[in-house]
Amino acid sequence: MDLASIIGIVSGIGFICVTILLGSGMGLFWNLPSVMIVVGGTIAATMIAYPLSDFLSIVKVTMKVFLFKIEKTEDIIANLVEISNKARKGGLLSIESDIANTPDAYLAKALQMTVDGVKTGDIAAIMQKKMALIKKEHKTGYSLYSSMGSFAPAFGMVGTLIGLVQMLANLDDPSTIGPKMAVAMITTFYGSVMANLFFIPMATKLEGRSAEEITNMTIIYEGVVSIREGEHPRLMEDKLNVYLGAGAKPKEE
Amino acid sequence: MDLASIIGIVSGIGFICVTILLGSGMGLFWNLPSVMIVVGGTIAATMIAYPLSDFLSIVKVTMKVFLFKIEKTEDIIANLVEISNKARKGGLLSIESDIANTPDAYLAKALQMTVDGVKTGDIAAIMQKKMALIKKEHKTGYSLYSSMGSFAPAFGMVGTLIGLVQMLANLDDPSTIGPKMAVAMITTFYGSVMANLFFIPMATKLEGRSAEEITNMTIIYEGVVSIREGEHPRLMEDKLNVYLGAGAKPKEE
Amino acid sequence: MDLASIIGIVSGIGFICVTILLGSGMGLFWNLPSVMIVVGGTIAATMIAYPLSDFLSIVKVTMKVFLFKIEKTEDIIANLVEISNKARKGGLLSIESDIANTPDAYLAKALQMTVDGVKTGDIAAIMQKKMALIKKEHKTGYSLYSSMGSFAPAFGMVGTLIGLVQMLANLDDPSTIGPKMAVAMITTFYGSVMANLFFIPMATKLEGRSAEEITNMTIIYEGVVSIREGEHPRLMEDKLNVYLGAGAKPKEE
Amino acid sequence: MDLASIIGIVSGIGFICVTILLGSGMGLFWNLPSVMIVVGGTIAATMIAYPLSDFLSIVKVTMKVFLFKIEKTEDIIANLVEISNKARKGGLLSIESDIANTPDAYLAKALQMTVDGVKTGDIAAIMQKKMALIKKEHKTGYSLYSSMGSFAPAFGMVGTLIGLVQMLANLDDPSTIGPKMAVAMITTFYGSVMANLFFIPMATKLEGRSAEEITNMTIIYEGVVSIREGEHPRLMEDKLNVYLGAGAKPKEE
Amino acid sequence: MDLASIIGIVSGIGFICVTILLGSGMGLFWNLPSVMIVVGGTIAATMIAYPLSDFLSIVKVTMKVFLFKIEKTEDIIANLVEISNKARKGGLLSIESDIANTPDAYLAKALQMTVDGVKTGDIAAIMQKKMALIKKEHKTGYSLYSSMGSFAPAFGMVGTLIGLVQMLANLDDPSTIGPKMAVAMITTFYGSVMANLFFIPMATKLEGRSAEEITNMTIIYEGVVSIREGEHPRLMEDKLNVYLGAGAKPKEE
Repeated sequence: MDLASIIGIVSGIGFICVTILLGSGMGLFWNLPSVMIVVGGTIAATMIAYPLSDFLSIVKVTMKVFLFKIEKTEDIIANLVEISNKARKGGLLSIESDIANTPDAYLAKALQMTVDGVKTGDIAAIMQKKMALIKKEHKTGYSLYSSMGSFAPAFGMVGTLIGLVQMLANLDDPSTIGPKMAVAMITTFYGSVMANLFFIPMATKLEGRSAEEITNMTIIYEGVVSIREGEHPRLMEDKLNVYLGAGAKPKEE
Repeated sequence: MDLASIIGIVSGIGFICVTILLGSGMGLFWNLPSVMIVVGGTIAATMIAYPLSDFLSIVKVTMKVFLFKIEKTEDIIANLVEISNKARKGGLLSIESDIANTPDAYLAKALQMTVDGVKTGDIAAIMQKKMALIKKEHKTGYSLYSSMGSFAPAFGMVGTLIGLVQMLANLDDPSTIGPKMAVAMITTFYGSVMANLFFIPMATKLEGRSAEEITNMTIIYEGVVSIREGEHPRLMEDKLNVYLGAGAKPKEE
Repeated sequence: MDLASIIGIVSGIGFICVTILLGSGMGLFWNLPSVMIVVGGTIAATMIAYPLSDFLSIVKVTMKVFLFKIEKTEDIIANLVEISNKARKGGLLSIESDIANTPDAYLAKALQMTVDGVKTGDIAAIMQKKMALIKKEHKTGYSLYSSMGSFAPAFGMVGTLIGLVQMLANLDDPSTIGPKMAVAMITTFYGSVMANLFFIPMATKLEGRSAEEITNMTIIYEGVVSIREGEHPRLMEDKLNVYLGAGAKPKEE
Repeated sequence: MDLASIIGIVSGIGFICVTILLGSGMGLFWNLPSVMIVVGGTIAATMIAYPLSDFLSIVKVTMKVFLFKIEKTEDIIANLVEISNKARKGGLLSIESDIANTPDAYLAKALQMTVDGVKTGDIAAIMQKKMALIKKEHKTGYSLYSSMGSFAPAFGMVGTLIGLVQMLANLDDPSTIGPKMAVAMITTFYGSVMANLFFIPMATKLEGRSAEEITNMTIIYEGVVSIREGEHPRLMEDKLNVYLGAGAKPKEE
Repeated sequence: MDLASIIGIVSGIGFICVTILLGSGMGLFWNLPSVMIVVGGTIAATMIAYPLSDFLSIVKVTMKVFLFKIEKTEDIIANLVEISNKARKGGLLSIESDIANTPDAYLAKALQMTVDGVKTGDIAAIMQKKMALIKKEHKTGYSLYSSMGSFAPAFGMVGTLIGLVQMLANLDDPSTIGPKMAVAMITTFYGSVMANLFFIPMATKLEGRSAEEITNMTIIYEGVVSIREGEHPRLMEDKLNVYLGAGAKPKEE
């Protein structure tokens, strides 16, 4: 569960509501046509911009931000070192039994190829291509949010323009000018809040998540290549530990 | 037929119309000079910015978005594996009969060179250059839309400035100020809607389409090189299957 | 003669004029101080931003857009194939007579080096450096226009600010407020039209032109290297034909 | 202690305060709801955009700007030359005693590997990966500030929109329009000052700091590789001195 | 002396002054608090963004734009060809006497290493690193101006917001609204002029200057490597002449 995102969204909406309530009731900021033009316009533009399958994947992608659970880098390295030790002692074939227990599909596939005696170069090529593909899939996810982050304010402005034009065309009753203009501006408000409290931060978080996953895949990639090449487990551990970062194990370096 | 684009455009226009109709009639948002300056100005600027042939290709490029039909990655791989098997059994010459039946010009040309005994390096060089050229042609397509997406709001603003200047120069009759300003703002509205509901999303979709086509060409490229080199069909399949992605065949990995 | 650019500029100005005339006379949109601050400011800023020689080259660069005449890719390839055939039959020295008739300085220089027996690596190095230099010169051209495209609206706004400050400081006679503000806004109008109808599209076109010229130079480069290496003319033609693109010779691929 | 940053922040706030005081009291520019929406919204959006650990590191990262103390490039080079001389005379093992005294963890680890007889290629790989990781950690720091620099003005505008809508909905008492609008604009003021006097400059400084640290790590990297390879200390010094820059030792070059 | 920059600044200020004088006196556009907030705020933000030493170097960097004097490319090549000829006839040691007369530190250092018999690879490595460092120093210079070009309009807006808030809070006397608002807008005017007539063009010019210097350093680099390798002076001249460009020696190519 990604606590930061949930705290962020809840507190963000909270700050906006409190700010509103200090000056007026909430009702002033609810306007159905405004919601319709911003949400509808953003969705429509996004559907034109992306294939249907990518667009529909946004629910899955969003869930991922909140339910995201990534294996710890330490555990991945420990697991690879263990496999490496086993392979060193019992030969590459001895790790076959571990494959079934490996929950990570990327690692399982790589180990299977290792056991099958596929050449290091071919294993590396397949693993790297797989990584590149996952990276591209992630990119679709965050560029989708990023596009929505630029469409939302644009349709907010479109809605405000509609409201202003309608108000300006009928200035007969001066007492209605203020409220009408207020309603017109709410659409810009919606677009801006949606973009800055949801779409843009989500795009940034997804990009960060992608980097973390790719780092883990890189560790697995280097580990399996090292195992396939019969490198000493200790040297492999030394090389992979670099990925733990200054924060994770400051005493080690 | 690209359903998402059609749903997007129809629903986008729908949302805007409904939003307008909730506040006034549609007539308020129709103004011929505004259409003229935005559409005319955008077309004029685009003609200056691109060669005539590129500019005229926009109809073809647009059709492509709506009629786009790309061969499935699975089918391409299956086809390549089949050819590879045939070549393995009957020799490279045995695939000559397939070339005539290959609808894809890129694959046909590559296979022809393979049958003709052109060296792998030369085949690879020609295929890669071809890919780079197609990529460049695609780029012209989406940068054209992208340019229009930035010209449209600019000419929207130019039109609004013209309207405002004309209104400000004649403030004699206060009752006409509102309607005149309304008309002036419609031009900005046109530019913004055209850019955000059409030009910018179309540019994004074309870029995505291009990536898909290039991926397919890359698969064909790798497949033909593999066939030319006499690699085992099973290994080739393993390598190409990576391109199917997590979504397409989750059970496989 | 680049028809698209001329049609674009003429029709763009036409659309703006017609839009203006539908609402008022043209005289309303003529204001000398506004022209002065936008044109003068843009030129001044450009002179600070670029060396004098680059700035003065803008006339030449602009002429190039309108008088641009590039050799057809087909003709370049046909010519190279012919030379290749000649060299194959009569030896490298036999092409010396063609050099004097070669109008293209880049090709002539490359052939001269070939005849002189300069090593392939040295010819390639010199030709590539030459290409990089031409690319850089082109870049100066379009970045100059691009800079002007961002300075013009900025000085448009500066002019509008001047007008507004002067108007606001003297609000004594309310009847002059409108006309004064109209005049102030004309400066923004000038900056925006100049940028979007001239500077920005010209920068885009020059960038496209540069790409075309560089493609032709690349073809010549690859052709001469192929001739120098004694590659078979037929293979060379196959390789160079890739540059013709899908549009030029669809039947061939 | 980073004097420039402290002078910058203090004088920046000073200039703003003096400008305000020349026109009114400070009280006019204090509004709690405005502070809440800008600060709160920016923090909320940043928490959604980054993992909790990264977000919490901002205090540490900020301290770093003010307390930043980097080892002088000259001292690093002198130290490496000394170690190189020692290793040349007494062999690689003779430098083991220095490792305990090396405060820099990166250098210590590298020397330890050298003494342990790890192959140059492996040392280089580990050191480069370490550098890449540190670079990524730094990047998180300055992209965090950079994101806050774009969220702050956005929430400033959101707050202003809230204020304007509330004001426009209640235009009954004309005498309150001015003050209410003043309050609404203060939120934009807060967002703009926070972004331009704090977040954006801090992001730039952190990026610069990162470059300095990476340069020092590069020097250590090259030095240790040179020592491991047994290169002459004098040549190593020549190579590393290049990093001192024109400003630091103009007479030397 | 860089004439273009001086003409640009003088004429730019001239155009602005004349435009102002056509509408009012200059006094209307002088306001000390506005100057203070724009200049002060820009300086403060720049001090936070850059180390003190970089910030203080701005005077030197600015002088460089106006006093800039770069050695002609033709002279550099002629000089290198002469040295190459000497080295060819009298051996590498014969050029030692020239080193003392070489005003260019970069060339002198490179020749000294050549005479000292340093290996080509090491000379190349040192020269390239030196070039990369100079490039980085130049980059600091123009990114400093570029940052100021974005801070100035931002603080212009901050100042305008201050003025507007103060005006809106005291609308008692309608006759002062105009003048007060005029004063508020002057700050935006200052920020915009400073950015577009000074900071941004200066950043562009410095970037161009950097490219020119780096080109000259590249020529020296290639020349010295050619001399060290004992390449024929004529071939070296051919290779270096490419850098002269189409404009400099059109007849040659």
